[in-house]
Amino acid sequence: MKNPIIAAIESRVSTNLFDSEKVLDPEHIEELTRLATRAPTAYNLQNWRFIAVRTPEAKARLQAAAYGQAKVSEAAVTYIVCGQLPSHTVMEECLRPSVEAGFMPAQMIDAWSEAVESTYGDNPQMQRDEAIRTATLGAAFLMFAAEAHGLATGPMVGFDPAAVAREFGLAAHEIPVVLLAVGHARQGNWPQKPRLPISRVLETI
Amino acid sequence: MKNPIIAAIESRVSTNLFDSEKVLDPEHIEELTRLATRAPTAYNLQNWRFIAVRTPEAKARLQAAAYGQAKVSEAAVTYIVCGQLPSHTVMEECLRPSVEAGFMPAQMIDAWSEAVESTYGDNPQMQRDEAIRTATLGAAFLMFAAEAHGLATGPMVGFDPAAVAREFGLAAHEIPVVLLAVGHARQGNWPQKPRLPISRVLETI
Repeated sequence: MKNPIIAAIESRVSTNLFDSEKVLDPEHIEELTRLATRAPTAYNLQNWRFIAVRTPEAKARLQAAAYGQAKVSEAAVTYIVCGQLPSHTVMEECLRPSVEAGFMPAQMIDAWSEAVESTYGDNPQMQRDEAIRTATLGAAFLMFAAEAHGLATGPMVGFDPAAVAREFGLAAHEIPVVLLAVGHARQGNWPQKPRLPISRVLETI
Repeated sequence: MKNPIIAAIESRVSTNLFDSEKVLDPEHIEELTRLATRAPTAYNLQNWRFIAVRTPEAKARLQAAAYGQAKVSEAAVTYIVCGQLPSHTVMEECLRPSVEAGFMPAQMIDAWSEAVESTYGDNPQMQRDEAIRTATLGAAFLMFAAEAHGLATGPMVGFDPAAVAREFGLAAHEIPVVLLAVGHARQGNWPQKPRLPISRVLETI
């Protein structure tokens, strides 16, 4: 039998058509999100926030901010995956559990806080890049978590970020990076689109 | 038995210590990269490039551009995962195989090309964001491909992007987004760092 991770990678499609009759309860959404947050982040910053949009009213507002894309509403839940501009002020909260678990020396909290400050402090582009990276990693792990639960996913970048931020109360340091529709696929989705030959994208040196 | 995808998500660690005696041959690297490129990209742009650094000479150059981080050289291979600023000029090459496969109407190549042009054409921030997203998704799928092959991964954002671009001949439209060390872990790595409580990062509406 093929390795299940490889089978998921090879069979996964960006789903456009969802069965709107199927729902996911909040506990199920919480479990998927718990798995998504196992994605790595720089310095364990965890500079992300997940807004799981599942009620018809909230979906309608999100769909309007996403140029009317139907899958926003047809999927059981559509996540707004937000990245946050990194700040050293969160390091105590993010790293204390690693110290308490016994593997991280306590002084590393200060050392990593200083590293975060020096890496991002006065570099807005690096801050934004990190917010995009972190949210994207979270979304990718969310895709795999959904696959493990037999659910389909449809990522979207076609949305008005200002409208999403306004409608859903994002903080000034939060960027909506990707929307991810999650639910049960219905008939009619395309297969996985062919990729470029590997020789076009890989250089081994 | 736990679902293997969930087991991988829960057990994966960002590996810092690799067994430098273990190597990966180019065919193995190609297979991992093939799986990485199954990640989704907006409009199937596939705006990424993977540079797999495996020789001692090339690793030494990359390690110097990554503030001396030892894992760059100790891992069997360290990937430079690059994102490319999107351009509509690649759409014919990227979409023709989907038309030939019979599921995509031929006129969608032009329609999507126009959509790419209007989405990114005069928006440098959106271009850069998409390069970061695409490369990060590729890196995430590469992490899962490595897990499926029993290999450990260590992502890095601590590097000098200008030095990487210069040393490895990146094009003007290419951004080095993340380095990913891939290989066999040795003893002494930390466990997965605890994450924030889910209530801190998830809002369900």
